[in-house]
Amino acid sequence: MKLTFSPASPFARKVRIAAIELGLIDKIEFVPATVVPGQPNDEYSQINPLKKLPALILDNGDVIVDSYVIVEYLDELAGGGKLIPASGAAKWRVKSDHSLLQGMLDSMLLCRYEKLVRPQGLQWQAWTDDHWNRAWNGMAYFEKHPEALARPFDIAQIGLVCVLGYADFRFADCGWRKAYPRLDAFHEKMLARPSVRISVPPPA
Amino acid sequence: MKLTFSPASPFARKVRIAAIELGLIDKIEFVPATVVPGQPNDEYSQINPLKKLPALILDNGDVIVDSYVIVEYLDELAGGGKLIPASGAAKWRVKSDHSLLQGMLDSMLLCRYEKLVRPQGLQWQAWTDDHWNRAWNGMAYFEKHPEALARPFDIAQIGLVCVLGYADFRFADCGWRKAYPRLDAFHEKMLARPSVRISVPPPA
Repeated sequence: MKLTFSPASPFARKVRIAAIELGLIDKIEFVPATVVPGQPNDEYSQINPLKKLPALILDNGDVIVDSYVIVEYLDELAGGGKLIPASGAAKWRVKSDHSLLQGMLDSMLLCRYEKLVRPQGLQWQAWTDDHWNRAWNGMAYFEKHPEALARPFDIAQIGLVCVLGYADFRFADCGWRKAYPRLDAFHEKMLARPSVRISVPPPA
Repeated sequence: MKLTFSPASPFARKVRIAAIELGLIDKIEFVPATVVPGQPNDEYSQINPLKKLPALILDNGDVIVDSYVIVEYLDELAGGGKLIPASGAAKWRVKSDHSLLQGMLDSMLLCRYEKLVRPQGLQWQAWTDDHWNRAWNGMAYFEKHPEALARPFDIAQIGLVCVLGYADFRFADCGWRKAYPRLDAFHEKMLARPSVRISVPPPA
């Protein structure tokens, strides 16, 4: 299997952490790819019309997107029920929490693009505020739901690690540690895992 | 169960079609909600920090997001394996196709916001072009993969119906029918289903 990858992508990081935790990392060849909003990449669009990372390319050529479905696929390859509970209320809690985190990352990337990719003079502050609030309110949700931080390691916790790591990477002054001390403690604890530690984004 | 809903939301339409097809529509109370980018909605952010439609509110107060996980949940309620194959290669093809369609809708909404919600003078054409190309290239993918149009009715086909319906609703002049005749035939065929027909977005 091949995975299109960039060390700066929080979505690719999610898959990398999952692959390590599931014992599948040695079965995946990481293929560097670069995608920039506002710039075509026709070659990569042939692999994923969404022009997004990551995409998993199976040995038969089939392509699987997005990061969530890729992790579901890897989880099943590893026997199932490892990072996503197989049944019961926990299954839906983890899946919904993960979707929330996925949306938080989407919004954080939109903030990043608005501030640093969109040409000067075309920024709309209300847009940035709106999307930052979504990420910030999402963090508040997890601060208020400590049970989500204490479950067996799951895809939502991986998503939260990727959200917080991306906050450090691109919004270093946002102050999430001070505002959300439970998330700070969770993040510190997660850094004890090699999968989390070695996948921290490189210095910006 | 309650579902936060707007007839203009293609994501809410997806859940509505699924609920009808799964025989669960009478178990869901539709709760109108309005969310606009750049405008806070603190009340709704309490339900979904992402400030997005739809969200499913269970009778015990638990909230499930996003539209994909809601359809997975309803599918399981209906016995499982109805709109998402339960196993095998078809499962991953349908899930990946659905993720592609979800991303296409995200990009189409970004185009809509760029052109009609963002203040005049702050538009960035390269952004609109980029995101429109993602949706357009995604349509081309399905035009080139007619097997995706011929499977038993599934969540990806619902997603494609919602993409094409949203194109008619917000980008009426984009010319998708002429560019993609197989999608046109697929869409016409789908309109024979009451779930699809009654959920067509209202005139813009």
